Amino acid sequence: MIRAGIVGGTGYTGVELIGILAGHPDVELSCVTSRAEEGVRVDAHFPSLRGFCDLAFEDPAKSDLGSCDVVFFATPNGVAMKQAPALIDAGVAVIDLSADFRIDDIKLWESVYGMTHSCPELVADAAYGLPEINRDAIAKARLIANPGCYPTTVQLGFAPLLENDVVDQSRLIADSKSGISGAGRNANVGLLLSENAESFKAYGVPGHRHQPEIRQGLERMTDSPIGLTFVPHLVPMIRGIHSTLYAELKDPDTDVQKMFEDRFANEPFVDVLPWESHPETRSVRGTNMCQMACHRPMGGNTVVVLSVEDNLVKGAAGQAVQNMNVVFNFDETAGLVRPATFP
Amino acid sequence: MIRAGIVGGTGYTGVELIGILAGHPDVELSCVTSRAEEGVRVDAHFPSLRGFCDLAFEDPAKSDLGSCDVVFFATPNGVAMKQAPALIDAGVAVIDLSADFRIDDIKLWESVYGMTHSCPELVADAAYGLPEINRDAIAKARLIANPGCYPTTVQLGFAPLLENDVVDQSRLIADSKSGISGAGRNANVGLLLSENAESFKAYGVPGHRHQPEIRQGLERMTDSPIGLTFVPHLVPMIRGIHSTLYAELKDPDTDVQKMFEDRFANEPFVDVLPWESHPETRSVRGTNMCQMACHRPMGGNTVVVLSVEDNLVKGAAGQAVQNMNVVFNFDETAGLVRPATFP
Amino acid sequence: MIRAGIVGGTGYTGVELIGILAGHPDVELSCVTSRAEEGVRVDAHFPSLRGFCDLAFEDPAKSDLGSCDVVFFATPNGVAMKQAPALIDAGVAVIDLSADFRIDDIKLWESVYGMTHSCPELVADAAYGLPEINRDAIAKARLIANPGCYPTTVQLGFAPLLENDVVDQSRLIADSKSGISGAGRNANVGLLLSENAESFKAYGVPGHRHQPEIRQGLERMTDSPIGLTFVPHLVPMIRGIHSTLYAELKDPDTDVQKMFEDRFANEPFVDVLPWESHPETRSVRGTNMCQMACHRPMGGNTVVVLSVEDNLVKGAAGQAVQNMNVVFNFDETAGLVRPATFP
Amino acid sequence: MIRAGIVGGTGYTGVELIGILAGHPDVELSCVTSRAEEGVRVDAHFPSLRGFCDLAFEDPAKSDLGSCDVVFFATPNGVAMKQAPALIDAGVAVIDLSADFRIDDIKLWESVYGMTHSCPELVADAAYGLPEINRDAIAKARLIANPGCYPTTVQLGFAPLLENDVVDQSRLIADSKSGISGAGRNANVGLLLSENAESFKAYGVPGHRHQPEIRQGLERMTDSPIGLTFVPHLVPMIRGIHSTLYAELKDPDTDVQKMFEDRFANEPFVDVLPWESHPETRSVRGTNMCQMACHRPMGGNTVVVLSVEDNLVKGAAGQAVQNMNVVFNFDETAGLVRPATFP
Repeated sequence: MIRAGIVGGTGYTGVELIGILAGHPDVELSCVTSRAEEGVRVDAHFPSLRGFCDLAFEDPAKSDLGSCDVVFFATPNGVAMKQAPALIDAGVAVIDLSADFRIDDIKLWESVYGMTHSCPELVADAAYGLPEINRDAIAKARLIANPGCYPTTVQLGFAPLLENDVVDQSRLIADSKSGISGAGRNANVGLLLSENAESFKAYGVPGHRHQPEIRQGLERMTDSPIGLTFVPHLVPMIRGIHSTLYAELKDPDTDVQKMFEDRFANEPFVDVLPWESHPETRSVRGTNMCQMACHRPMGGNTVVVLSVEDNLVKGAAGQAVQNMNVVFNFDETAGLVRPATFP
Repeated sequence: MIRAGIVGGTGYTGVELIGILAGHPDVELSCVTSRAEEGVRVDAHFPSLRGFCDLAFEDPAKSDLGSCDVVFFATPNGVAMKQAPALIDAGVAVIDLSADFRIDDIKLWESVYGMTHSCPELVADAAYGLPEINRDAIAKARLIANPGCYPTTVQLGFAPLLENDVVDQSRLIADSKSGISGAGRNANVGLLLSENAESFKAYGVPGHRHQPEIRQGLERMTDSPIGLTFVPHLVPMIRGIHSTLYAELKDPDTDVQKMFEDRFANEPFVDVLPWESHPETRSVRGTNMCQMACHRPMGGNTVVVLSVEDNLVKGAAGQAVQNMNVVFNFDETAGLVRPATFP
Repeated sequence: MIRAGIVGGTGYTGVELIGILAGHPDVELSCVTSRAEEGVRVDAHFPSLRGFCDLAFEDPAKSDLGSCDVVFFATPNGVAMKQAPALIDAGVAVIDLSADFRIDDIKLWESVYGMTHSCPELVADAAYGLPEINRDAIAKARLIANPGCYPTTVQLGFAPLLENDVVDQSRLIADSKSGISGAGRNANVGLLLSENAESFKAYGVPGHRHQPEIRQGLERMTDSPIGLTFVPHLVPMIRGIHSTLYAELKDPDTDVQKMFEDRFANEPFVDVLPWESHPETRSVRGTNMCQMACHRPMGGNTVVVLSVEDNLVKGAAGQAVQNMNVVFNFDETAGLVRPATFP
Repeated sequence: MIRAGIVGGTGYTGVELIGILAGHPDVELSCVTSRAEEGVRVDAHFPSLRGFCDLAFEDPAKSDLGSCDVVFFATPNGVAMKQAPALIDAGVAVIDLSADFRIDDIKLWESVYGMTHSCPELVADAAYGLPEINRDAIAKARLIANPGCYPTTVQLGFAPLLENDVVDQSRLIADSKSGISGAGRNANVGLLLSENAESFKAYGVPGHRHQPEIRQGLERMTDSPIGLTFVPHLVPMIRGIHSTLYAELKDPDTDVQKMFEDRFANEPFVDVLPWESHPETRSVRGTNMCQMACHRPMGGNTVVVLSVEDNLVKGAAGQAVQNMNVVFNFDETAGLVRPATFP
C-alpha cells in the first residue's frame, strides 16, 4: 500500500484521479490540495464521491506532500515545475499531468507555453509517460511527464506505420475532435453549454500547443524529421477524443491490419478493432482503453486510422495511474479495468 | 459462484446487466439470449464489452436457461410471464425487469398493459423488488418483479413522509424527468437525437403506465388510498431520472430532514444529502445510488423532495443485481460499488 | 421608421434583439453599447450577424442614446434603474429586460435583488410588459418592465384559471424547466457544457427571484393572496422553457379547454393546442410564441397546464419587441413572425 | 406568384422547405404529399408550422402535382426518377433533393445506389444545382439535381483552389462532420439520441455515397482526374456540417485569402471570413449561408479550408429554393435572408 497525493484536485482530471485511486487495491489517497477550497470536504465539492473519499481539500503550502510515495500534479501548466524538484529530492515519485516536462527542447517549450522554465535541468530526467512507447524508461524514472490528451491518440495511431517505415512521413495529417472537458473546468465563456451545444468548430488551426509534443513523439519513432498537420476541433459532448489520421502508403501491398494487431498484441489498453471498423468514443467512455481501426478508403493507398479514447482517462488520469503502476511495479492494469458507461 | 442467464441482451438494460455481472465476484454469466442476434458475439454488438464478455448471443429457444441459478428478463412486457413458470419449476430464481409481475391487481394490469396475463397465479408469489421497502419478502422469493425506473425514485422519495403519516396523502404530486434511454433501444422516430436534442416535453400526462405501479406502492405504505398526480417528461440526455415530489405537511413543526436521514441511515444505496441541497443526475450516473434532498420552499408547508437515480442502474439493472444479492444472501452491495462517471 | 438603441449588446438577449430588429420593417438600429467590446464590430463578435448589422459596439458613456426613440436595456440587474430616468426625461421610451422595474413593492425588490433601488419613484410609472395581460397600460407607458422568462410561461398558463376563479388559488404549483441560456452569457463554471450536458437538476428551490414576480402577477389576477410553490430546473439544452402547472379545480364540470381557447382566441403569440396535447420547446424555438396544452391526469380534478416558450424570445427579446410594437402602435406582430427552427 | 408542390413532406428537408416557402414572397405552396399521413393536417404533424401552413398531406397518387409550376422531391432515392418525367412533360419544373439525377455516369450511379435507373435519358438534361458553380445551366434547366449536403461544403471549399490550379489535385482530403439530421427522419436504432449523444464516430470510411458526387464535381473544375479521400463523421447535434479540407500548395507564395475573397465576392450565400478564422456551424444554423475560412497551419504549404453550412438549408431545402429562384428568375435571395438562430 503506497500513499498518494494530488495537487490540484478540483479540476476534471483531479476528480477522475480521486475516483480511480479510490478503487485501486495498492494505493491509499492521503491528501488532495486546493488553495481555493481549503477545508471543504472533497465529497461536498463533488457529491459523486460521497462514500469514496472522506478527505478535505488542503492548502498545498501546509500539506505534507513530502510524506507521500507518489504525488500527481493535476494543475495548470507552470505549477509542477516549481514544486517537483523538492518532492523528488524527498524521494517522492512525481507524475505531472500538465505540460511542464513533456518537451525536451526548452526553448521550444518556453515559446509554446509562454513562460520561462524554472527547472530545465529536470526535463531530461523526466520520462515521457506513454507506456506503450516508452515503458522501460518510465519504470526507471521518478518523474513522469504524462502526455497530452490529443498526443496520446495520435502517437498511438501513427506508431505502427512510422516504426515500420511504411508511409510517407513528410505528409502526415491528424484531424482530431475532442469533447469540451479537454479544455478544463475553467470559468470561460467559450466553454459554456450555450456556446457549444449544437455547434461544431475547429480551433487553434494556425498552431496548437500539442503539435510540437506530437511531432517530437513521432520523430522519436523515425529518428528523422516528419511533416505533420494537426487540426483540433471541439465536439458538443463532455468526454472523448476521436483522431482521424491520414498517411500515404509507400507500398500498396502493406498489410496494415496485421501490422497494427502485432504491434499492440500485448498491450492491455490498446485494442485494435477488426479491419474497416468505426470505433466510437462512447465505447471507451470512463475507461483507460484506446480503441483503433484501420481503413484504406475506396481501396486506395491512403491509410486512415481512427483512434478513440476518453480524454480524461487514457488521455489524462487513467494514463497517470497506468504510469504509477509501471513505476511501482504493480500490475499495470490495477485500478483501471472496467467496462465503459454505455450508452 | 452462481450461474446467471440474461434473456434479451441487446437492449440498454441488457448491456448494463452484462457489464455489472462481469465485475461481480460471485456470479458467472453463462448465457445471453437474443433471437435477432443469435450467433453474434456480444462484444461485436457492443464493443464497449470487449474484454469483459466472450459469449455469443443464443437463441432463447435453444439456450439452456434451466441450468442457471438465476435468470434475468430484460425483455419487453409480456415475455417473462410466458417463460418464468418453467424456470421457477426448474428451481431457477427469476428476476424480471419488465412489468409482468409488478401489479397485484390482474384486471388493472391487463387494462394498463393491454394484454391478457398468462400466469396470474404467479403474481402473488412475486416479490416487488424494492429492497429498501421490501427486503424481507425479496430474500424469501424466487420470483422478483424489479420496479419501474420512475417508481423507484418516487416511492423512495415519498416513503419517509407516508410511513410516518406526516403529509396530506390525498394530494401527492410527482413531476418526473427522464433521460431518453428510459424508452429503450427501439427503432422509433420519437426517440431520434434529431427529435429530442434541444427540446423538452411532457408525455403520457393523461395516464402513464407507471402511475398504477407507484400508487400501489404508496398505498402499501399507508394501508389506505392515496391521491397521486404523476407527470413524466423527457430530458435531452441519455441517462438519469430526477423526480420532484410535492406534498403538504400536516404539522409545520415536522423535522423532515431528520425523518429522511433516519429512514435511510442503513441503506447503502439511498443517500440523503444535506437540507436544501440540489442533487444532480450526473452525480449518480453509472451507479446504483439514489440521492435525495428535501426542501420547504419559501419556508412554507409544502415539502419538496428531489430524488435522482440512473434509470438504467438503480432504476433497472443495478437494482436487479441488488435484488439478486438479497435473494442469494450475497453482500447486498457486491458488484455495485463504484463512483459515478463524472463529469 | 424609429431609431432604436440597445444597452448591453453582448449577451444572449442582446444578440437576439439585434437579429429581430434587423428584420423589423419600422425600426432602424442606431447603436449598440458594450463597455468591454467598445470599437469592435458587432458582426466580428457575433459572426451570425454578418450581413445584418454593420455597427460597432459603443461605450455607453459616449453613445448618443438620447437621440433614440426607444432604448432597450439588456443589462444585468441594477443598470437600467440608473440610466432610465435621464432617457425618459429626454423623451426616449425605455424597455428594460432586466428586473429593475418589475416589482411594485420596493422593499421586497431590494431584499430579493440585494441592492438599494436608485429610482423607486419610477417603478409605479413602469408598465409590466406582458401584453396578453396588460396591453392597455403598456400602450400608454414610456417605461416597460419586460417580464422574466419563467414568469411569462407561468402567468400566461395560470391566467385563464385564476381570472375565472375556478381553482383553489392557495395551492398552486409551478414546476419549471429551462435551457441553460436563461442563466446568461457569463463566465461561470456552473454554466459549462461539461457541468450541464447529460445532467438534470433543480436549483433555487428554497426561493428563486422569479417567485415574488410571479406571485405579484397572479395576485393581480385574483385581487387576493395566492399560494405558490415554484421550483425551477436546468435542462441540458440551450433554449426553451417548459412550465408544468398544477392546480385543483373547484368544480369538476369546468370546461378547461374552452376557457383557455376563449381567453387567448385573439392573441397572436399564445397558441392553445388541442386538449391533452404535449407541447415541445422545439416547436417554438426562435419564435415569439407560447404554446400551451391542458390535461386532467387520470380524469381527476387536478388541472395540469403545459406551457412552453423560447426563453430568449417570448421570454425576453421577442416580448420586448412586442412591447415596443404596442408602445409605438405598430402591428403587434411586426418583425416577430417566423416558423421555428425545427428540428 | 407561382404554385409549388412538395412530394414527401414528412422528413426534415420537407418540413424545412414548407417553412421557407411559407415566407417566400413569390410562391404559394399548393400541396404537400405523404402516403403515410394522408389527410392529416401538416401543422398537426409539425406543430411548429401552426399559423404557417393550413394544408393537409395528400396521397401523391391523387394529388394534382401537374398543376404546379414547380415540384420539389424531398423523397428517398429512387422516387423522383419515376415521377419526374411526367411532370416535366406537363411543363412543371422539378427540383430533386434526392440523389437520382446527381451523377452523370449511369453505371456508377447504379452501382453506388444499388438500383437500376428508371430514366437515364433525363440525367443529361438535369442541371447540377450548385448555383455558385453552375448558375447559368440551372437558369435554363427544368430539372435540377440538388446537391448532397456534404458535397456542397466540399465543392465550394475546394473550388477556388482547383479552378485556379494552385494545389496538388491528386491528394485532396475532406474530413467532414455532420449533425445527425443529415441521416433523415427514419426509424433507425443507429439514429437514436441514446446511441449518439455524448459520442463521436466516423462512418462509411471505406466508401460513402457522396464521394463519387464530390469527385465528379471537383473533376469538372479541373477537367482532369483528381484524387480524393473523403471521411464523414457523426456529430452529436441536430444541424450543421463542418468540412475540414486539406490540400498542398504548389507555390508557397499563393495568396489564398485573396483568391477566396475574389471568387465569392458576389455570392450572397458564401461568406469568406477573415484569414485564420474558425467558422462555427451555429453561426449559420437555420440559414442558407456557407461560411468559410482559410489557414496554413504552422505557416506551411498545406492549405486548410474550414467550410460550414446548415445541412438542412444550404445543404438541402434552402439550396433547393435558391435553385428555384434562379430557375424562375426571382431575386436569388428571396425567402432566404435571415440571421441564424444563435445561440
